Amino acid sequence: MSTLFLRTLREDPADAEIPSHRLLLRAGYIRRAASGGYTWLPLGYRVYRNVERIVREEMDRMGAQEVHFPALLPREPYEASGRWTAYGDNMFRLKDRRGSDHLLAPTHEEMFTLLVKDLYSSYKDLPLWIYQIQTKFRDEARPRAGLLRLREFVMKDSYSFDTHDSGLDASYAAHRAAYIATFDRLGLDYVIVSAMSGAMGGSRSEEFLHPNQVGEDTFVRSAGGYAANVEAVRTPVPDPIPHDDAPAAHVEDTPDTPTIDTLVALANERFARSDRPWSAADTLKNVVVMLVHPEGSREPLVVGLPGDRDVDPKRLEAQVDPAVVEAFTEADFAANPALVKGYIGPAALGEKSSSGIRYLVDPRVVAGTRWLTGANQAGRHVFDLVCGRDFTPDGTIEAAEIKAGDPAPDGSGPLLLARGIEIGHIFQLGRKYADALDLKVLDENGKLVTVTMGSYGIGVSRAVAAVAESTHDEAGLCWPREVSPADVHIVATGKDPAVFEAAQRLAIDLVDAGLTVLYDDRRKVSPGIKFTDAELIGVPTIVTVGRGLADGVVELRDRRTDARRDLPVAEAAATIRQAIQA
Amino acid sequence: MSTLFLRTLREDPADAEIPSHRLLLRAGYIRRAASGGYTWLPLGYRVYRNVERIVREEMDRMGAQEVHFPALLPREPYEASGRWTAYGDNMFRLKDRRGSDHLLAPTHEEMFTLLVKDLYSSYKDLPLWIYQIQTKFRDEARPRAGLLRLREFVMKDSYSFDTHDSGLDASYAAHRAAYIATFDRLGLDYVIVSAMSGAMGGSRSEEFLHPNQVGEDTFVRSAGGYAANVEAVRTPVPDPIPHDDAPAAHVEDTPDTPTIDTLVALANERFARSDRPWSAADTLKNVVVMLVHPEGSREPLVVGLPGDRDVDPKRLEAQVDPAVVEAFTEADFAANPALVKGYIGPAALGEKSSSGIRYLVDPRVVAGTRWLTGANQAGRHVFDLVCGRDFTPDGTIEAAEIKAGDPAPDGSGPLLLARGIEIGHIFQLGRKYADALDLKVLDENGKLVTVTMGSYGIGVSRAVAAVAESTHDEAGLCWPREVSPADVHIVATGKDPAVFEAAQRLAIDLVDAGLTVLYDDRRKVSPGIKFTDAELIGVPTIVTVGRGLADGVVELRDRRTDARRDLPVAEAAATIRQAIQA
Repeated sequence: MSTLFLRTLREDPADAEIPSHRLLLRAGYIRRAASGGYTWLPLGYRVYRNVERIVREEMDRMGAQEVHFPALLPREPYEASGRWTAYGDNMFRLKDRRGSDHLLAPTHEEMFTLLVKDLYSSYKDLPLWIYQIQTKFRDEARPRAGLLRLREFVMKDSYSFDTHDSGLDASYAAHRAAYIATFDRLGLDYVIVSAMSGAMGGSRSEEFLHPNQVGEDTFVRSAGGYAANVEAVRTPVPDPIPHDDAPAAHVEDTPDTPTIDTLVALANERFARSDRPWSAADTLKNVVVMLVHPEGSREPLVVGLPGDRDVDPKRLEAQVDPAVVEAFTEADFAANPALVKGYIGPAALGEKSSSGIRYLVDPRVVAGTRWLTGANQAGRHVFDLVCGRDFTPDGTIEAAEIKAGDPAPDGSGPLLLARGIEIGHIFQLGRKYADALDLKVLDENGKLVTVTMGSYGIGVSRAVAAVAESTHDEAGLCWPREVSPADVHIVATGKDPAVFEAAQRLAIDLVDAGLTVLYDDRRKVSPGIKFTDAELIGVPTIVTVGRGLADGVVELRDRRTDARRDLPVAEAAATIRQAIQA
Repeated sequence: MSTLFLRTLREDPADAEIPSHRLLLRAGYIRRAASGGYTWLPLGYRVYRNVERIVREEMDRMGAQEVHFPALLPREPYEASGRWTAYGDNMFRLKDRRGSDHLLAPTHEEMFTLLVKDLYSSYKDLPLWIYQIQTKFRDEARPRAGLLRLREFVMKDSYSFDTHDSGLDASYAAHRAAYIATFDRLGLDYVIVSAMSGAMGGSRSEEFLHPNQVGEDTFVRSAGGYAANVEAVRTPVPDPIPHDDAPAAHVEDTPDTPTIDTLVALANERFARSDRPWSAADTLKNVVVMLVHPEGSREPLVVGLPGDRDVDPKRLEAQVDPAVVEAFTEADFAANPALVKGYIGPAALGEKSSSGIRYLVDPRVVAGTRWLTGANQAGRHVFDLVCGRDFTPDGTIEAAEIKAGDPAPDGSGPLLLARGIEIGHIFQLGRKYADALDLKVLDENGKLVTVTMGSYGIGVSRAVAAVAESTHDEAGLCWPREVSPADVHIVATGKDPAVFEAAQRLAIDLVDAGLTVLYDDRRKVSPGIKFTDAELIGVPTIVTVGRGLADGVVELRDRRTDARRDLPVAEAAATIRQAIQA
């Protein structure tokens, strides 16, 4: 510790929002270097390398083979796949000295596809599982939370190549099992949730989420075992409702009711219904947004949904991807006079309407449902507007927020909402990239067939944060042994040279026994500061050599449980080794 | 081998110029992914990781501490050091989504300096040695020779921080010793040569060059132990020559003599001297080039040197760095009418002359030397022009080529010229970066002093090429054991299932004994192809399990010496293990 490149901080750094970020900074594991870019300090890099080693070992164990691609790549392959454009602002692009377009790869589907095309040509070569552990770059709009969302981060990305769909299923299952083994070794809780595949294309897709308050992903679970990220939740579609006896739609004056709350209040005051009061769920809210497509074109979109729910931006984004959602501005309203702000209704909407604006509704808006909604005139709403009779949307969209208590789509009970950190993601890409880049092999019958692929990622640097997040306590970090920067933290206290001699001898004995040791040999630092630092740094086993030495004992302490016991100094090395290696 | 992601090539790839490049491609170690960017395939990545491990172990052994910086960095620190501009076209620059300038770091002096400033404040914290092993990016004008000159490559860069110059000397010496240990373990020959520090600034600097024909660096050695790269060779400066009795300079008609050869021929024909014939060494050649300074300004420069030597572009570039040398074009001549192409002479040159063009001469052009040189009129030269009497250059420059036989500057004998691959470089940076970024610590007397730094690099990916280059033979690669992708390559030949069973059993026994094994289990591949592949791949120990099995033996073969012996199959694993681990 007297020479370790380290400064622990007594105070929480001002800009650190979450415990892992705060503690990794305070304990001297990382240091901010750029927006979304952190420097690993010596202790941090040891933890990082331990996590990387575990990921690598589990990939090797499943039979995947490690390769390594450049991060700086030419535009052409990404142009062929469409991702040069589809990735939008999230991709770093640059020109070289000759003016050629390049990118810093966010993931490497294209390059892996081309490499396999380069080397392989027969079904006999497949399945193939190859991976890399590599620095990735993404120009995140909002880097945050330390290592959780970076612009430069390390990812293990692997890819499977199969001739047939059944092979892809097997490759997917093998990766799923390897991920379970990896996260189990990292000591990380996880939930495997169904996921949308977003910009990646493809079909089956699951995320490994570490349930944690600080996570950026919201997911749902049911008691019956359903789990999905919010983007992937499908709303159970109600049966159509007979509406032969529904009253005709009628427009009413509803002055000063631009919001659902004001509308419901006015309806209950002036148009009270006999059976029960009006509620927000009776209203059809029409939310207008602007989609910006990758090539730059802008398209208005109206989402119709029951007024007791908001649009969930993440669910909406997942549905319209690769388009990006922007707010609909006053200028946009001015350019679309058919849209009367606060009073937008179905009559003005739809690709076949005079506005031509696409109109998608929540799946609950089925034929026969009756709505109180905008009449496309300021201060007026329409009552008893029946879906399928009075209006026909262009389609449905899964953009409404999920609420706790909503039914699981598989009938397994009401949903609970939770937050999680995405630590892994497995995709069945299918033939998207192989089609785009023409990766074919000869099958068993000598016929050229397009290869089917899977893509599998683990955020290696993010996993460090997740482990810190899930294991820390009030006093500091608290590492599982396999990722800890050291096996044992020896604290020598006081001024007696004999103490430092004994501590150093113990350190050497433990190192000779194959353990890694962090030895606090600082002479002018008080025991209090040393203990505080040891708790902050979070090595799982702490050994104190101090006053007890006069009685021939050192103290063995478990960082997590705080259990302590004295060990005769002569037996200390052997006892500690046994305790750790057991 | 039946599942390894590998395709060996029978033919030399067309674009591979040097043996390491050719063989690494043919043996399936690397594959081109971009201009100056290669993908490591599984065998190649194993070798790369072995080299990386050796570099890391030696850095750790010397007491350096590993950290890891982002590669993508903001402009500001590099602006403060001046390198944002000085690095010129060799640095990749890009903007993020907010329009902020960023770069892909070519080296990390600035960031290391700022990190130490961030954490440390006292002489007590120093010396500090920290390093990283990291992907670097340089926009090379001419990426070439496979892994030798890449745009994306891995470098180990370390930095030392000391309070006093004597500390820097010690840090420098410690790195020098660690580099010797590292290259010795890699089995690489090297010469340690004095070097210019180029764009890095600073004082003492040495390169570790692996002597090799394919290297890009020319260096010199003397029998007496002098060694330097050509950029660093200082020309011994002759004593001034008395010139009181020298004849007056006289201009003569020398039609059609724009080159040294034509001039010498004409001089011998029309102005024959009595003592000996005129030679090129009697002429003073004035070479005009255009310097382009980092901020974009252009400055003509004339280099005067004895006509029997050419300008060495690398020596000239090293002297004018960070300016870049461009050819002097016809348009430039038109803009500078004082320069008469082919007949440029000292009278028109110098900052104080009418042209104002800077005029630097070779150190051999001392006071009293007498020259035949241009008279600044087409078809005319001046004879007996005496330096110090008839003209005074603005200064000297080390830009003339070094020739074999030139005297070593330290008097240790004539120089030999050789080529080498730069595998390591150690610099005394001094206070350049600490000054620019204000890194100060309190010294023993409580006074703030600027820290002095060293910078030390090893090209990790390049070292793979250097090892391949220095160890290969006609048949293929031939790895030293510590970097080989496997300890043993087992070749099973024929169709007898018993052979494959025995080979597999042997493979398992060797793996259980802690060795790494590449097992050629391919059933439908001929023994000839298997042996050719084994030689190409270059694992140091090859074991053949084949017909001999009927007699109870397998063949142990040394890849390098081709020495072979039969081993009883029952003892094979133990014997091989002993042979390797001895």
